[in-house]
Amino acid sequence: MNKSKLNYLDWAATAIPQEDIIIEATKKAFNFFANPSAKHFAGKNAGEALENSRKEIAKLLGINPNEFFFTSGGTEANHIPLLSMLNLKGQFSIAVSAIEHSSISAEVKVLEKNGITILRIPSDKNGQITVDAILNTIKDDTVFVSVMGVNNETGAIQPIKEISQALKKYSAEKKGRAIFFHSDMVQAFGKIPLNIKELGVDSASFSAHKIGAPRGIGFLYLKKSIDSFIQGGGQENNIRPGTENLAGIFAMELALKNYILNQEEYFSNAEKLMTFLIEELKKIEGISFIPACRANKEDQKNFSPWVLQFANKSLPGEVMLRCLSEKGICISTGSACSSKKKINPLIKAMQINSSLSKNINRLSIGPTTTINDIKEFVKEFKDILKEF
Amino acid sequence: MNKSKLNYLDWAATAIPQEDIIIEATKKAFNFFANPSAKHFAGKNAGEALENSRKEIAKLLGINPNEFFFTSGGTEANHIPLLSMLNLKGQFSIAVSAIEHSSISAEVKVLEKNGITILRIPSDKNGQITVDAILNTIKDDTVFVSVMGVNNETGAIQPIKEISQALKKYSAEKKGRAIFFHSDMVQAFGKIPLNIKELGVDSASFSAHKIGAPRGIGFLYLKKSIDSFIQGGGQENNIRPGTENLAGIFAMELALKNYILNQEEYFSNAEKLMTFLIEELKKIEGISFIPACRANKEDQKNFSPWVLQFANKSLPGEVMLRCLSEKGICISTGSACSSKKKINPLIKAMQINSSLSKNINRLSIGPTTTINDIKEFVKEFKDILKEF
Repeated sequence: MNKSKLNYLDWAATAIPQEDIIIEATKKAFNFFANPSAKHFAGKNAGEALENSRKEIAKLLGINPNEFFFTSGGTEANHIPLLSMLNLKGQFSIAVSAIEHSSISAEVKVLEKNGITILRIPSDKNGQITVDAILNTIKDDTVFVSVMGVNNETGAIQPIKEISQALKKYSAEKKGRAIFFHSDMVQAFGKIPLNIKELGVDSASFSAHKIGAPRGIGFLYLKKSIDSFIQGGGQENNIRPGTENLAGIFAMELALKNYILNQEEYFSNAEKLMTFLIEELKKIEGISFIPACRANKEDQKNFSPWVLQFANKSLPGEVMLRCLSEKGICISTGSACSSKKKINPLIKAMQINSSLSKNINRLSIGPTTTINDIKEFVKEFKDILKEF
Repeated sequence: MNKSKLNYLDWAATAIPQEDIIIEATKKAFNFFANPSAKHFAGKNAGEALENSRKEIAKLLGINPNEFFFTSGGTEANHIPLLSMLNLKGQFSIAVSAIEHSSISAEVKVLEKNGITILRIPSDKNGQITVDAILNTIKDDTVFVSVMGVNNETGAIQPIKEISQALKKYSAEKKGRAIFFHSDMVQAFGKIPLNIKELGVDSASFSAHKIGAPRGIGFLYLKKSIDSFIQGGGQENNIRPGTENLAGIFAMELALKNYILNQEEYFSNAEKLMTFLIEELKKIEGISFIPACRANKEDQKNFSPWVLQFANKSLPGEVMLRCLSEKGICISTGSACSSKKKINPLIKAMQINSSLSKNINRLSIGPTTTINDIKEFVKEFKDILKEF
């Protein structure tokens, strides 16, 4: 691919990789190639390097090294706490927000087919999962609630801390089984200021390729250990089996360090670019923001400045995507991760009318996005709309 | 690690990485960094590169590109067909050999706790799972049988083709549900001459780091598609969700090509080294091969020439491992993947007496192992035994 002609505005699907970091990590892993479970010196060296990386990542996240577990990515990190519920006895229900990523929404359908009651927490028209919506949905037998931190399509930041507190209060009052609260943090970590501990969640998932590390690595935060349904060689303290991917872990550590150290600068730049983009799009006739409140300055605090979703009044989102792609500009129609699925659960949840729902695009930016990238997009977007 | 002082004889735990191949693949993946599910040109380029790699791997394996699915490694490739059984209705049992890798043996314990009947097929004293043992174990309601291709501890090659045929005959006679036959091929692929199609299995698992590609990538062969219990963004034809790890896939393709193209040469070299090693060990007083038949020339055809297990009469395997490790020689006490687990299921299955079972070591070689590596090991092994 000729990267000089690439205007990449699809960072929510995957980030542009930090090549120097990945090469450094790959080479470092050659020195620790042995199986970290092996007891000879080469295995022990690999095990020590793994634990050192774990400590560094823990420090960056403000958690303890024994509170998170490496996984093959965000999907697996979402599955592990969810599937651990299969070890529970008796009747129970699981409540998930209607705007979850497909790694949660598709997996709960499997559980539903297998007789587990799945409750779906509706989003409001602003793309928000409110505490009230949760309390109105959960039942006495609810054991698990999943609400993502930042939605991958709208960028809507969810009130995770408030939800944690409300669920704790609810559980205490009911004096029943405590509800396990999981949050998919794939689009949140390193992107919006947050402190995992303060969120009060029982678990949170993270994917490395969303911050410029390689595909195939992520982690699961767990406040307390769980009885994982997925078992094997005992790695990751019996939470996630499989020989540890050291090259991926080293790269994730470096990418995370880069994101966390530069978080404030990245965030304020993203805010500036996003404000500019929204103002420019407002000038175009027939543009709707999804959700609509995204047009309001006072509502920006409820959205990630990295992601924007909008519809135009004339052109299907997929046609717009292709026209822009021909000019070297990459945007999305929705979550790239679920483009092979036909129904867009978020649009359904937000009750967008069907004529508009075809014309939706998502634009997402990253740390290397410039004002010129945005200006080029706006210009070409306008030109394409004029053509049709 | 000072690799010049490393005599690595633990290839069954993980292979020495093929550094040039991994760097080449990592750099290639930078050109295809976009999400293969994305519809813009960068995504399509990534998707095409993924499919090209799939075609190359299929050609190397003599199967169709739509007959295998990339996974995060061997553990996940073992779990997917096993867990798909959870979608079945009614009463059923699952039969697994008593010598399976922990990714199968630990996971069936989880299923057992959840009320699924697990039948265990005993190994004979030669470390073999015979057709008779299987037919004596399975029941009318058995829906799944798992027998690994090559055992990771003894190197015993299992009669997979004969088992496939026997299970097909059994199912046909019973006129009941066909039994799904899975084989863990992690220690077999590229190591012993085999043709997946001829094996007649319904599924087979593979891990890339065992042949010099990175950790975190593998694949699952499936004769026919299954209803995967693990769902998400629809990737890998709904068999294995999660953004595809292109760097890992490219490296696996290159490593597999290397192994398959050089299979005969690698195999005959391994046979020579293994024969030499066995003859040298026979000269040492009190050495037992595990299983005992490994000492016989006529039985070598039933064992992988890459793996050897043996016990000495005086020193615990772990002490031997440490003494050798101090001299730069890396061997194992058993499967490194399960060293965190206390019980060694294979030793139990083979009915080795407990005094001997403490003194077991596994030595495993790879394509770059030399006769001098083996000679050095034999010399140091003898010296250590003399010291105690």
